[in-house]
Amino acid sequence: MDLYHEKLHQASELLAAHDLDLWLIFVRETAEHTDPSLKLLGQFSFTWPTAIMVTRSGYALALTGLGDDEAVRRTGLFTDIRTYTQSIGPELVRLLSAYDPQRIGINISRGDVSADGLTYGMYLNLCDYLADTPYRNRLVSAESFVAALRSRKTPQEVARLRAAADLGLRIFTAVGDFLRPGVSEREVAAFVQAQTNACGATTAWDPAHCPGLNAGPSSPWGHVGPSDEIVRPGEIFHMDFGVKLNDYCSDHQRVWYCLRPNEDKPPAEVLHAFNAVKAAIQNAAAAIRPGVIGWEIDAIARQTITAAGYPEYPHALGHQVGRAVHDGGVGFYPRWERYGDKPYGTIDAGMVLTLELGVRTRYGYISLEEEVLVTADGYEWIGQPQEELWLIR
Amino acid sequence: MDLYHEKLHQASELLAAHDLDLWLIFVRETAEHTDPSLKLLGQFSFTWPTAIMVTRSGYALALTGLGDDEAVRRTGLFTDIRTYTQSIGPELVRLLSAYDPQRIGINISRGDVSADGLTYGMYLNLCDYLADTPYRNRLVSAESFVAALRSRKTPQEVARLRAAADLGLRIFTAVGDFLRPGVSEREVAAFVQAQTNACGATTAWDPAHCPGLNAGPSSPWGHVGPSDEIVRPGEIFHMDFGVKLNDYCSDHQRVWYCLRPNEDKPPAEVLHAFNAVKAAIQNAAAAIRPGVIGWEIDAIARQTITAAGYPEYPHALGHQVGRAVHDGGVGFYPRWERYGDKPYGTIDAGMVLTLELGVRTRYGYISLEEEVLVTADGYEWIGQPQEELWLIR
Repeated sequence: MDLYHEKLHQASELLAAHDLDLWLIFVRETAEHTDPSLKLLGQFSFTWPTAIMVTRSGYALALTGLGDDEAVRRTGLFTDIRTYTQSIGPELVRLLSAYDPQRIGINISRGDVSADGLTYGMYLNLCDYLADTPYRNRLVSAESFVAALRSRKTPQEVARLRAAADLGLRIFTAVGDFLRPGVSEREVAAFVQAQTNACGATTAWDPAHCPGLNAGPSSPWGHVGPSDEIVRPGEIFHMDFGVKLNDYCSDHQRVWYCLRPNEDKPPAEVLHAFNAVKAAIQNAAAAIRPGVIGWEIDAIARQTITAAGYPEYPHALGHQVGRAVHDGGVGFYPRWERYGDKPYGTIDAGMVLTLELGVRTRYGYISLEEEVLVTADGYEWIGQPQEELWLIR
Repeated sequence: MDLYHEKLHQASELLAAHDLDLWLIFVRETAEHTDPSLKLLGQFSFTWPTAIMVTRSGYALALTGLGDDEAVRRTGLFTDIRTYTQSIGPELVRLLSAYDPQRIGINISRGDVSADGLTYGMYLNLCDYLADTPYRNRLVSAESFVAALRSRKTPQEVARLRAAADLGLRIFTAVGDFLRPGVSEREVAAFVQAQTNACGATTAWDPAHCPGLNAGPSSPWGHVGPSDEIVRPGEIFHMDFGVKLNDYCSDHQRVWYCLRPNEDKPPAEVLHAFNAVKAAIQNAAAAIRPGVIGWEIDAIARQTITAAGYPEYPHALGHQVGRAVHDGGVGFYPRWERYGDKPYGTIDAGMVLTLELGVRTRYGYISLEEEVLVTADGYEWIGQPQEELWLIR
């Protein structure tokens, strides 16, 4: 069974658990604006308004404009493929009538970008098409279903995520060999991107700021491209980086300290910060198991780092990783408004998440990021965590 | 002035013409799901909920999560950049209050994918943030403004579109030299994609079906990848193809006839079809000038081709071309429900559009596609139209 069939099978199973009879993805001109959940089922490209539906009994239905149908047929995924020429509305109503779903999940979510693929205009169109049918009032948010479908990685997805993490961490190791005093952030970025491309991968996020680099304390913090800062003795070098390999992402952060000529180990202040960050991540990870709530894990890390005398990190402890590097749904989010409902979600087996936080010091930004797979009774690391501060000599 | 400043300047001018005081783009996690109109102003990548605003007086405002701001600052495009940590809502209200717009355009459109970038969930969030303010009831669709902004190509945009068309047509010429009996669609696709990449371009749409190829009458029609069909004497070879060069697209269709050993010209039936298709496009083009309505131009081509004894083409005569190969907004659309309001829009100077149609014959699919720029008093071709059927010997 290929990955898309595996995911389709999972979708039909999850529909029952989320009290939905049918899941409806409603898109048009997907090259210009797609629904993020469409890619879970395949690499589609639709020109005209298109309805992709999955039923609880495992049927996959596609209703496309004439001309978009052959590519759908070739996927081998669909049990029923219909086309239209002038308007999708009447055929959509006919198809829904044939399956007569009581609860139709559509992709609307206030808090989860990945489950919010329906635009407002397309929502209005859909309501109009269904206006004189019973189906108009059977539309409900598919949010929890979509979140589960994305979150619970299938065996093939976990294998791909592990392969991406392995490659990403190999490139971190190569960077360690490349770093020496005087090397600039720009040179490191070019080196990392060349390595990534040479391995048949792409960067996990926008190459304009992947890798994210901080050489020393003056380098600007955040999602920003490389600066003119260089590796300097007595300073930290920090890198936030992931690859996308075979459509799946990795996401890690690592830190180095560049020894001064007369030093044989980092200053105590640097080691204290590194150990506090590491401890915050490890303490939080130790509490991960199915059933915990996302914000509780964030709170453990937040408490550890503040107890060590550092300020709170101004972001979440961690997000899911999958086809997108920020894969949506629940995560280790603090209970801040900007994260919506996500902090309150339950952590389930099969999720892959990051744990990431850092502190700013006068030597530079000391931040780590690790990945975990949630297992039936706890967690496993995806990739080996950084246990000690790496040194540039 | 770089292209983004040129476009920003155009945006502030168009706001007045469309009776808007402020245009608001409201997005989050743009790597996962962006608003198609965001790319008109720059190559942005935002993690957290972000508001990008342009005012009638020419101010460009950005409100981002802390960490997303530095990349925005570096564009040099914004007059006012603010950040938040926990919730975008209060700061958004403060910013709107400072500028106090009476009419706020948001990206909602039932008919135009490119003007429909606001998701339903984000719309609900926005309404909540503004609930206790006067701004909640000042939200209106920015549809016509966004369409104008995309449609009216600036001088730099036209130059890029011409460069893309030149490259695309050079690759068609190279394909002409490559074609001989026995060559398969798959080989042509690989050749075209290699040529495209070697020129520093990408295909204008999904490389899974760009180029779109039809060798002979058995090749499946529509948006579909290459088949196992080969160039055969006595058959048509058809190619639909465009490049994306420097972020701007081209889109053309060309046809060849492969002579049989004993032929020195194509069969009369083939020439008749080619000439009918050419005439339909040229008749329609001849009527293009600012102020005509899209469907009227489609109707001329539709009438020409049916008068020549062929069935109507099951799609529109043409769409706009720009950063997207189907660039949204008005076009030469028939008055079919699936095209929404788009057929009824006015054609304006500065638009770049395709004219495309074909007929199926027992020799294969004979279809052409040309590009035009609408000028102050008519039109100019972008790229030289195909005047004669090309021959494979």
